Amino acid sequence: MATLVVIRHGQSQWNLENRFTGWTDVDLSAQGIEEARRAGQLLKAKGIHIDATYTSLLKRAIKTLNIVLEEMDLLWLDVVKSWTLNERHYGALQGLNKAETAAKYGDQQVAEWRRSYNTVPPLLPEGDPRLPINDPKYQSLDPALLPRAESLAMTVQRVLPFWNAQILPVLTRGKNPLIVAHGNSLRALVKSLDNLSDQEIVSLDIPTGIPLVYEFDEDVRPVRHYYLE
Amino acid sequence: MATLVVIRHGQSQWNLENRFTGWTDVDLSAQGIEEARRAGQLLKAKGIHIDATYTSLLKRAIKTLNIVLEEMDLLWLDVVKSWTLNERHYGALQGLNKAETAAKYGDQQVAEWRRSYNTVPPLLPEGDPRLPINDPKYQSLDPALLPRAESLAMTVQRVLPFWNAQILPVLTRGKNPLIVAHGNSLRALVKSLDNLSDQEIVSLDIPTGIPLVYEFDEDVRPVRHYYLE
Repeated sequence: MATLVVIRHGQSQWNLENRFTGWTDVDLSAQGIEEARRAGQLLKAKGIHIDATYTSLLKRAIKTLNIVLEEMDLLWLDVVKSWTLNERHYGALQGLNKAETAAKYGDQQVAEWRRSYNTVPPLLPEGDPRLPINDPKYQSLDPALLPRAESLAMTVQRVLPFWNAQILPVLTRGKNPLIVAHGNSLRALVKSLDNLSDQEIVSLDIPTGIPLVYEFDEDVRPVRHYYLE
Repeated sequence: MATLVVIRHGQSQWNLENRFTGWTDVDLSAQGIEEARRAGQLLKAKGIHIDATYTSLLKRAIKTLNIVLEEMDLLWLDVVKSWTLNERHYGALQGLNKAETAAKYGDQQVAEWRRSYNTVPPLLPEGDPRLPINDPKYQSLDPALLPRAESLAMTVQRVLPFWNAQILPVLTRGKNPLIVAHGNSLRALVKSLDNLSDQEIVSLDIPTGIPLVYEFDEDVRPVRHYYLE
């Protein structure tokens, strides 16, 4: 009976500034560092065993994981870092303040960009220096894989293959994975784990820095989940 | 023409207390954290490119590497962690103060334990809770591999196979590895790279937190090395 722990990275500088972040590689805020530390302390206090760890290529997730592992005295564990766990790419919205964007485009449009399952935000323009192809992190990937913006549905299309290839076999062996990722890459995962409809996922939010624990049965079906607080 | 960077972890709490450390998993001191930060800043300022990273299973090395990568904005790089890069196992000397040990056993005996190539320190006794087999880090390894104490010669016997299997192929592809490890696992490596005799290696010390840069020719022979300061 394996246990999965997922954690959304601690508060980032742009969470704090209420800006669309996506693949922008912003750092944790001071509060985010504290959230990560507390998440690690909680997992240690509850005696939750971790065997394998996974995160994105973005520093707010990697640093959160490193802090959690340090608190659990597990820095020696391998860390698998994959772009497929990155936040949803927010396209040309990246960097914009959410309130200012709502004032300009209307609350409804912004709500749709943020929470609807299939809506793709405005694409990053051709030649934009922020395109992933210009970032050393993504240079070893097939450029055809790299998005100019993503809907949540498109995020699911990269998160689930990673889940099936990397995480599911670990759970099947009865081992406990820890995934530290992002609001929308984790919503993509939770949609699948909890079997939520495209409509149900719209209203689901995952808080920063709170461990979300899934317990699995012998057939690797999730039987129970709860936040550790 | 590849470049290798090796760094001995920043000052640890037991470096500061002048105690034999070996596989004891002590943390960095405040000065050690600063040394790591400065090493990363130097590498970034000099424009040294890093493609792949390697460290031990001990937190003073892993944290040094994480700090270096953060300063270089390279947290997204994969990190290979291997017990073969661990410090030399100091056996029953681990935890003892070096000055007190010298007062008890004599300066010459302590100098021989510390610096001679073939001398094995007193073994950890059978049943000692500090034996590696009792540590979760090493539970997946063949128990026959786990030492109760090591000479530098024995350390060479595990460092060089890792070098040949993991680092050499990277250099051959023209890529630049970064290794963050320990005083004696790096002396083991430097002995081979600089073709030093068993006698010559005795007097070689590697300072904490100073990047040591090796440049290789097309045939992956080291042609030049220097400390970055």
